[in-house]
Amino acid sequence: MNLHNDLLLRAARGEETERTPVWLMRQAGRILPEYREVRAQMGGFKDLVESPEFACEVSLQPVDILGVDAAIIFSDILVIPEGMGLPYKMVESKGPWFEKTIKSEQDVDGLQVAQAGDVQYTIEAIKMLKRALNNRVPLIGFAGAPWTLLAYMVEGSGSKTFSMAKKFLYTQPETAHKLLQKISESTINYLRAQIDAGADIIQLFDSWAGILSPVQYAEFSHKYINQICNAIKQSHPTTPITVFAKGAFFALAEFSKTKCETIGLDWNMEVVASRNAVGSSKTLQGNMDPCLLYADYKTIKKETEKMLKEFGPYRHIANLGHGVYADIEKDKAKCFVDTVKEFRFNS
Amino acid sequence: MNLHNDLLLRAARGEETERTPVWLMRQAGRILPEYREVRAQMGGFKDLVESPEFACEVSLQPVDILGVDAAIIFSDILVIPEGMGLPYKMVESKGPWFEKTIKSEQDVDGLQVAQAGDVQYTIEAIKMLKRALNNRVPLIGFAGAPWTLLAYMVEGSGSKTFSMAKKFLYTQPETAHKLLQKISESTINYLRAQIDAGADIIQLFDSWAGILSPVQYAEFSHKYINQICNAIKQSHPTTPITVFAKGAFFALAEFSKTKCETIGLDWNMEVVASRNAVGSSKTLQGNMDPCLLYADYKTIKKETEKMLKEFGPYRHIANLGHGVYADIEKDKAKCFVDTVKEFRFNS
Repeated sequence: MNLHNDLLLRAARGEETERTPVWLMRQAGRILPEYREVRAQMGGFKDLVESPEFACEVSLQPVDILGVDAAIIFSDILVIPEGMGLPYKMVESKGPWFEKTIKSEQDVDGLQVAQAGDVQYTIEAIKMLKRALNNRVPLIGFAGAPWTLLAYMVEGSGSKTFSMAKKFLYTQPETAHKLLQKISESTINYLRAQIDAGADIIQLFDSWAGILSPVQYAEFSHKYINQICNAIKQSHPTTPITVFAKGAFFALAEFSKTKCETIGLDWNMEVVASRNAVGSSKTLQGNMDPCLLYADYKTIKKETEKMLKEFGPYRHIANLGHGVYADIEKDKAKCFVDTVKEFRFNS
Repeated sequence: MNLHNDLLLRAARGEETERTPVWLMRQAGRILPEYREVRAQMGGFKDLVESPEFACEVSLQPVDILGVDAAIIFSDILVIPEGMGLPYKMVESKGPWFEKTIKSEQDVDGLQVAQAGDVQYTIEAIKMLKRALNNRVPLIGFAGAPWTLLAYMVEGSGSKTFSMAKKFLYTQPETAHKLLQKISESTINYLRAQIDAGADIIQLFDSWAGILSPVQYAEFSHKYINQICNAIKQSHPTTPITVFAKGAFFALAEFSKTKCETIGLDWNMEVVASRNAVGSSKTLQGNMDPCLLYADYKTIKKETEKMLKEFGPYRHIANLGHGVYADIEKDKAKCFVDTVKEFRFNS
């Protein structure tokens, strides 16, 4: 049952590694022609998420094609709101859209705490993927952080400012906490089931962290991330946890106290300043500008090596500072991955 | 010719003031019913920007109605791209849209350096506003920072990622510099004319600063902001300059060396950390979360006073950390303004 390549897990735990491990957020997706081909035969995005066979197949693709050091299960953070009773549609080239949104305490009371069975398709997909991986690389499970899920559930779609969601925090703080608590409990159920199904490491995505002020972030987001990390550590103490709070540069020092192993950095966060804020007890993940992959190969290689040197040889998992953009050429993404895999620190 | 209320200018210059001055980004606009009334009789947004009488009238409104300590000329940062030869439309509830965008060096060569005459309507509006203000409060002129203007000129519209604009920086860096240089020269001409027409203080808005990595920001944005500040200081040494680079928390320490008096903070930037990064030689402007104005009056008052105490009695100009959102009630905005005006530090 030992993994053939466990670089990612060892880096997360702070152990020494022969080289820096690497994967890409959104690696299972539209940058791969092989994904687009499989997808063309299927229905919409949600049909794919809800099909374990498809999710398993496209999660494997980047391991085979890009040679990344981990597989991440193909899914969506919004499966939890749906599992709680708030269904959504994924509108092509527009993003998620909720017909019903959360406006009142009554709306929150109408939601259930999601159980693993409410998101069974992803749990099944993880089981299939775990078998298909055959211990080649670790399997990453994931969920959205409670604040980011609340933001969609109140706003009803993506937004530049998420001002309706923020208005909800300012005008109905107690109802917001009630909702965040329900989301947190759902997420704990979901992540525990993911680990039981075979996830070797899990990541929380707080995609809209940077929309909140530092004070609101502490109250409405970080608190619930801590709750989730504590609960997972209690039930699954050996499974490493990664938290990626995009835009929350102001919370890095606080995250050093969170019961997670790895903290994700976006490309705005300077490596040395972030390391100083976080301290030495966490692994850092990231943080190349996703737009670097538009550059020529020489520039990609040069900037990637520069990034590796800035992070140093240990406690670093190489990644972009955001999900890879859909129009990036596969070979450019592979250049980033290969550069990390070929790089060695002078001893 | 002395201003009756010059609190803003004195705060910008680091002089002691009886109280903290206050104004709101986007104060001349849709939050005021009086603006919506005048606007309903007119055409689209751009017709209004190009009508000096209208621009003057709505710039005065927040001084009369909200009692702010400065008037800012009603205009748009995209008048400069248009003055350079790249016209745009403002699409209702969608934002700006350019029919032609910048793709190549040839496109850049086809643009002119804008002269004040190319934006004569705003210059005329400033002259009218200066007369109409009758020295009650200072008049703020403004322009977009070169990177933010390039972002629109390449992308052709607003964007969540501005990935086309960033791709342009990675794939055609020399052409990008050529364009930024042309924008900077246009902006210098424009801001000098604004000061000559009556602007008492000017502000550069780098709205998309936070999209760039720290390294790209230094090369493609900050460098040109410095160039503009240096040029204005040479021709108009006594006119204070404010730079607001939204999202560029990583550049605060570098901005302490820029030849400007005031640095704007967004609501993500913590006051004490920002002051430590900037040092004591600059005034700070901001930085209340614009969504606070959705809260009740008591909360607005409490949080505003807390903010004032954090900034301290000097070198602070109170403002939001972003433009006021269009759906904020006028009386909530007035509550923010009144709270600042009534607050006194204990001596």
